Amino acid sequence: MSRKTFLAASLAVICGTGVLRSDEGMWLYNDPPRERVRATYGFELTDAWLEHLQKSSVRFNSGGSGSFVSEDGLVLSNHHVGADALQKVSSAQKNYLRDGFYARNWSEEIPCVDLELNVLQSIVDVTARVNVAVPAGMSPDEASKARRAVMAAIEKESLDATGFRSDVVTLYQGGAYHLYRFKKYTDVRLVFAPEQQVAFFGGDPDNFEYPRFDLDICLFRAYENGKPVKVPHFLKWSQKGAAEGELTFVSGHPGRTERLLTVAELEYLRDRQYPIALAYLKRREVLLRSWSERSAENARRAKDELFGIQNSRKARDGGHAGLYDPALMESKRQQEKALRVRLAANPDFARAAAAFDRIQDAQAKIAQHEQVYRLLELGHAFQSELFDIAHTLVRAAEEYPKADGERLREFAEAGKASLEMGLFSDKPIHDDLEILRLADSLTYLAEQLGAQNPTVLKVLAGKSPRARAAELITGSRLRSVDERRRLHQAGATAVAASADPLIQLARTIDPEAREVRRRMEAESEVKKQAHAAIAAARFALEGKGRYPDATFTLRLSYGVVKGYTSAGKPVPAVTRLGGIFERSAEMEGRPPFDLPDRWLKKRKAIRADVPFNFVSTHDIIGGNSGSPVVNRAGEFVGIIFDGNIESLVLGFAYEETQARALSVHSAGILESLRSVYGAKPLVNELLAGPRK
Amino acid sequence: MSRKTFLAASLAVICGTGVLRSDEGMWLYNDPPRERVRATYGFELTDAWLEHLQKSSVRFNSGGSGSFVSEDGLVLSNHHVGADALQKVSSAQKNYLRDGFYARNWSEEIPCVDLELNVLQSIVDVTARVNVAVPAGMSPDEASKARRAVMAAIEKESLDATGFRSDVVTLYQGGAYHLYRFKKYTDVRLVFAPEQQVAFFGGDPDNFEYPRFDLDICLFRAYENGKPVKVPHFLKWSQKGAAEGELTFVSGHPGRTERLLTVAELEYLRDRQYPIALAYLKRREVLLRSWSERSAENARRAKDELFGIQNSRKARDGGHAGLYDPALMESKRQQEKALRVRLAANPDFARAAAAFDRIQDAQAKIAQHEQVYRLLELGHAFQSELFDIAHTLVRAAEEYPKADGERLREFAEAGKASLEMGLFSDKPIHDDLEILRLADSLTYLAEQLGAQNPTVLKVLAGKSPRARAAELITGSRLRSVDERRRLHQAGATAVAASADPLIQLARTIDPEAREVRRRMEAESEVKKQAHAAIAAARFALEGKGRYPDATFTLRLSYGVVKGYTSAGKPVPAVTRLGGIFERSAEMEGRPPFDLPDRWLKKRKAIRADVPFNFVSTHDIIGGNSGSPVVNRAGEFVGIIFDGNIESLVLGFAYEETQARALSVHSAGILESLRSVYGAKPLVNELLAGPRK
Repeated sequence: MSRKTFLAASLAVICGTGVLRSDEGMWLYNDPPRERVRATYGFELTDAWLEHLQKSSVRFNSGGSGSFVSEDGLVLSNHHVGADALQKVSSAQKNYLRDGFYARNWSEEIPCVDLELNVLQSIVDVTARVNVAVPAGMSPDEASKARRAVMAAIEKESLDATGFRSDVVTLYQGGAYHLYRFKKYTDVRLVFAPEQQVAFFGGDPDNFEYPRFDLDICLFRAYENGKPVKVPHFLKWSQKGAAEGELTFVSGHPGRTERLLTVAELEYLRDRQYPIALAYLKRREVLLRSWSERSAENARRAKDELFGIQNSRKARDGGHAGLYDPALMESKRQQEKALRVRLAANPDFARAAAAFDRIQDAQAKIAQHEQVYRLLELGHAFQSELFDIAHTLVRAAEEYPKADGERLREFAEAGKASLEMGLFSDKPIHDDLEILRLADSLTYLAEQLGAQNPTVLKVLAGKSPRARAAELITGSRLRSVDERRRLHQAGATAVAASADPLIQLARTIDPEAREVRRRMEAESEVKKQAHAAIAAARFALEGKGRYPDATFTLRLSYGVVKGYTSAGKPVPAVTRLGGIFERSAEMEGRPPFDLPDRWLKKRKAIRADVPFNFVSTHDIIGGNSGSPVVNRAGEFVGIIFDGNIESLVLGFAYEETQARALSVHSAGILESLRSVYGAKPLVNELLAGPRK
Repeated sequence: MSRKTFLAASLAVICGTGVLRSDEGMWLYNDPPRERVRATYGFELTDAWLEHLQKSSVRFNSGGSGSFVSEDGLVLSNHHVGADALQKVSSAQKNYLRDGFYARNWSEEIPCVDLELNVLQSIVDVTARVNVAVPAGMSPDEASKARRAVMAAIEKESLDATGFRSDVVTLYQGGAYHLYRFKKYTDVRLVFAPEQQVAFFGGDPDNFEYPRFDLDICLFRAYENGKPVKVPHFLKWSQKGAAEGELTFVSGHPGRTERLLTVAELEYLRDRQYPIALAYLKRREVLLRSWSERSAENARRAKDELFGIQNSRKARDGGHAGLYDPALMESKRQQEKALRVRLAANPDFARAAAAFDRIQDAQAKIAQHEQVYRLLELGHAFQSELFDIAHTLVRAAEEYPKADGERLREFAEAGKASLEMGLFSDKPIHDDLEILRLADSLTYLAEQLGAQNPTVLKVLAGKSPRARAAELITGSRLRSVDERRRLHQAGATAVAASADPLIQLARTIDPEAREVRRRMEAESEVKKQAHAAIAAARFALEGKGRYPDATFTLRLSYGVVKGYTSAGKPVPAVTRLGGIFERSAEMEGRPPFDLPDRWLKKRKAIRADVPFNFVSTHDIIGGNSGSPVVNRAGEFVGIIFDGNIESLVLGFAYEETQARALSVHSAGILESLRSVYGAKPLVNELLAGPRK
């Protein structure tokens, strides 16, 4: 433990609300951290430098980041960002997700399905116009409608005037409104992907871990009018790449942070929500793993769900450990205390000053409902695909006859097609797995509420959880898509008359599920309004010089390539290509530590000492996947692909003692393309630089 | 679901306290179920038949059962019962546990270390003499001393008179006392063991499951005066073995049942104790598994603990599911109600009548202490071998100076040598695993008691659980056995003065741990006395015709070879030898589904349709492992080696819809010995029958 650094960091925060940790921040491009970067690193963020990086940065609307890396519209992102696109262009004959892909020339590039890329062109502060349209004294409902109306008007005007995609983004929880204009690319083609084995080498065991050895990259090309676009801004490739201790920048689209949660909310997460969620995940993980080991077919059936559970469990375990960091919690406490003192001193902020207690009260009410909400409304008591279908049918019959605005939100007209696509999907449902999961979750229900609880007695109907689960699943006719269609079309009366045991069960618990959801949503609304009041006051007090919570819009982070200490042992900043073979050997080549044939064959050709992955102190979060890492010269030196387990706390607060962003190194990418894939034309394109 | 059988069984129980389920019972040899077997199966349990089976039955004092299967003292038990003995005679060169063993003649048989076999010779009811020695009006302390004294006197007299090992056994929770006399064999030699791979084929995934394919056997020979003993009673081998639907008997040593728990106690187990224990086990299982997958060395280090956790988790999950069977719980409720009505009607049973409420009150108090007891006294908050050592050192320094009778029981003079053997063991302790486990369990402590709990604050000392665990483990000197010896010899003052962080932590929590233990033990004593009162009344009311809870003494069970229905699907009664190859292929030969070379090579020689394992309705429990299954003719037809997952409820109540005993079939054993191991002399000995 580097306790000195730890302490220094804590003190920096405790000094006052205005002081950030040194490399903290997901900064707005129209409010960049010029002074901080100058003061800390002696580097000047010029307008030209910023514009070049901004316009070289790409947003994948499927949920990630990327960058232009050649004048001919070549876009680099992560393999896992491209995975959805890879899946969609694969077939039974050609599994590009698993086996990789390489187009030797433009004509071999494969058009992707439904992939939209955005490039940010400009930002306009429209806060004043939005606020004028929402005068004080309006009821919350009126205010909400008026705000939506003015935002839509601004977006329409901008689109008509510029042709750019135009989004008004809510920042600082409502403290500011900015208009973002994007150039859109919708003809995007697949250029290169490595095998998933090497892109996600180490799979779940090494997920969120470091050292790592992942070639998590994927190359696309943006087209317009059937031809590769000539882009005015793209990143020059650095062959040397990132060096230890070097100042670098990350430009990407962090999805969501919750750094403005109050202490009461954080304590609730730490003491209640995370422990409940983790115990539930671990219970399911053990259930599915032990069942998977009983047969290869079981393993195949449970694989996807099991991986999802493990991924969530690992992410939450990491976030939970972060919440137990007393320095983090103490700094939050001090910041909140200082802010409340300032708010209390000014009667203009009376609403904001009172908001903390309103949040705490709402949180206390949420605590009362949480358990039943999870069990009945989130379905933790009914882990069964057939039950989900039954519940959706029961609710659809009740909701669709209502006016659009009065329905539960998942039954809005706009989402009807995709809801029905899920409802009538003929993906296989396995009775044995259904019974296993339902029996365990019914047991969980009984454990959580008590065997004598009236809801439990109704649900179990005098049977043991195992017997009841078997009876419900084997007795249901909902595995027939035709039967689902029939019930869905026939509507409420038919659903009410159905003798299907799962439909009957869903009808039994639905009123209670709706009621607890209503209560939870009411308390969430109280919290939302209280947060907006605090945010507005905070913005008025602190104004510029801070950054808002992440909103999946373009942000700039700065930091250095730097190792850390874990459980008393130093973790080096950079791994080397040769390390992937050592790691594979150490794990005896067993999946997910097996290597693609191509890598095994080319082993001798690969320079083992070339940097492969590295860690840095950048402030990132989910959505940053695929973000370019650039040096002072604005050159591409790496690509973000993960965070270490300690970084999972970054949703709540920045931390730089142990939290690290993980990147693939630019030199390692080049060496792999050259030595393993023989992709010389691609390497040439990456190294070409701007044409004269 | 065979609901008819289910219902019939429930009704049988609900009719009254005197009616047992049809194949229920672990019967005393001196009070056998003659009427029941005659009425149900038309078979007469004659004295000669019983004596022959009794004297052919063998108890392994290491914790299992067995039987004589040849005139020359050949003893058959399970591989897992013999595992400890196999381990002790193995060396780095010869791993008999893993690779198996076969002595081609007497001279090759290997003497075992510390293995004692007992054969029951006679039972004498000494209840009257014990009760006379403990007149009413004595204080609990005096009564307890007087009882111990008279029992010791009876045992000594019997030993002197007969030369047999003589134990007075407490039955019916104190309702009866019987003197058991055993012939002892201490020169026991290893004759045959298969490879562990085939003895425990399917490992943890198939543990407690059925269908199964395990050759879970091990053969020993009893010697006296350096020669194989000639035994007057041994079981004739049935080549045909057990057939479906056939009445058979199990003679063995069930270890412990708790069928007389009150409804309040069962509900507590179901609603509180099992859920807590299971969540804790699953949490640890996920922790160790996910860590194990990070490296082969991690996997090696965590293997034993992980297997132990999985085994417990599976056993408890099964028991817990049983407690959720409403028929079981309802029958317990009805039985208790009926008994209480009878007790209330007779003033002689006033103490027993009041005992149910005393138990419920004690249980409510136990509920208050349970959490802290588990965390601090059972060490669930401090999962670290070094912490255990520290805590033992702290307590030893305080306990050993006290008089023997006043110490905590694990510090009694009699156990000092073995306690010190553990304390000064130089088995490797791995810092990384220690930190991992301790960090997780400290997090568990904070979750359970709350982050602001005073004990939690003291334990974490202002650090996060991870940082605190790393600091405690890396800062401790207790990995040095010399340091442990030094502290242990130096005593209380030195321990109090130690700056070792783990010693200091143990000293910090010890007073609270002792206090909660004291409270728990006080409530347990209340329950113990209340149970004795109920048992005495019950015995007086019901007398003969019932069986006492298991006590690891010889019992007789009867039942039939019979399949069952699981999750709506029929599970056949008998598996075949060929099935092991199919199961292995289905699991792609991956461990623990890989087969020994010998089996792969001999595959063609093995008759695939010979019965291998089978299930039956016998009432068994842990300790019955290795028990012979015999037919009406008293011939050996199989050997118990496990129960299915549904049988894990048998500790609380007999169930015969799904609960099944698992056996290796006599024909499968013979075929394996012949075709795989070429053990012709052994086969000849088994088939020889009594010499003329």
